[in-house]
Amino acid sequence: MRSNKKSIAIDMDYVIADVETQFINWYERDYGVKILKDNLKGKPEGEAFPDKGAIRKFCFTKGFFSEIPVMAGSQEVVKSLMENFDVFIVSAAMEFPQSLIEKHKWLHENFPFISWRNIIFCGDKSIIGTDYLIDDHLKNLDFCRGKAIMYSASHNINFNHHLRVHNWDEVYAFFKAELSNSEN
Amino acid sequence: MRSNKKSIAIDMDYVIADVETQFINWYERDYGVKILKDNLKGKPEGEAFPDKGAIRKFCFTKGFFSEIPVMAGSQEVVKSLMENFDVFIVSAAMEFPQSLIEKHKWLHENFPFISWRNIIFCGDKSIIGTDYLIDDHLKNLDFCRGKAIMYSASHNINFNHHLRVHNWDEVYAFFKAELSNSEN
Repeated sequence: MRSNKKSIAIDMDYVIADVETQFINWYERDYGVKILKDNLKGKPEGEAFPDKGAIRKFCFTKGFFSEIPVMAGSQEVVKSLMENFDVFIVSAAMEFPQSLIEKHKWLHENFPFISWRNIIFCGDKSIIGTDYLIDDHLKNLDFCRGKAIMYSASHNINFNHHLRVHNWDEVYAFFKAELSNSEN
Repeated sequence: MRSNKKSIAIDMDYVIADVETQFINWYERDYGVKILKDNLKGKPEGEAFPDKGAIRKFCFTKGFFSEIPVMAGSQEVVKSLMENFDVFIVSAAMEFPQSLIEKHKWLHENFPFISWRNIIFCGDKSIIGTDYLIDDHLKNLDFCRGKAIMYSASHNINFNHHLRVHNWDEVYAFFKAELSNSEN
C-alpha cells in the first residue's frame, strides 16, 4: 500500500552491513593473511585479496552473511528516517540462495523495527521504483529510477557521478535537508 | 540494467504456482476432509476450510512451497513472453521466511530459464516499477504502478475493477495484442 511519504531504498552490503570488515576477517581466518583496508581503496571488489576468488567463495558460504557487523550509525539513522520516509531494505541477495534466510535473520536481529513488508531481496534493482536509492554499486545507482546516493566504499572511490555520502551522519544530514527543502 | 523492452512482474502463488490445489491436498492429508474447488469460490482465502487457520499454518510449514504444482500453461507462456518483454517474478515471500529458499528452488526447477537477476522476493509490492503486474490479490493490484492484470482465483471472482485473465492462454493473447498495438 502506498503512502504519501517519499520512499527510500537502502542496500545492505557495504551500506548497513559492513561486509568489507567481514571479508577481511574471513580472509585472515582462512588464509592467515591480514589485508589492510587501505589496500582495498580504488580496487574492484575482491581484486585486493591475493586469492581473487576468495570473496566470491565467501558469499556462497553458509554463515557468511549472518555474522556481518552492522555499519556504524546505520541503525539509529534508519530508525529516524522511518519517521518521515517509507524505508525499504533492498538487497541483491538472489545470486546467493543461502544468503536469503541469513539476510532475513540478520535484519530481524539488527533492524527489528523494519517490517517484513519493507524488505526486498532481488537480483536486478532497476525495477525498484523508490524516490531514493542508497547503494554502493554503480550497476544499481546508474540505473535507478529515483535519486541515486552513493554510499562510499573502497571499490567506488574513483567514481564521482553520483552524490556521495561517507557515513550515516551524512545520510541523516542529506535527508534532513531534503525534508527542509520540501517544506519550503 | 534497464532494457528498451516493457517489463512484466508476475506473481507466484495462484498465478504460476497452483497454491489452491496445494491447500486442498494438504488439508485432505492433515484433516481427512476433501474440500471442493467450487466451495472456495467467492470466499476470502482460507475461509472455506473448516479450520480457518489451516492455510496460514501451511504457509509457515517447511516443504509447503517447494511442492506446489505448476499452473497449467504458465511455463510455455512465460518463456514466450520473455522474447519481447523483460519478465520478473515478484513474490511476497518475506512474510514466510522458510519459503524464501523453497521458492528459489521451485523457480530454479520449474522455470530454469528465468535468471536470478529477474527474481524479486518482497513484502509490499507497491515499490515495484514494472509496466505490467499479473497478480491475484487486490492488495497488490490496487497499488501497482503499471497496468494491473488480475489472474482469476477463487478469492477474487467478485472483484471486477481490473482486467481479468482466466488462464495463461488469455495472458498470452493479451500481450500479443499489446505488442500489436504498440507496433501500429
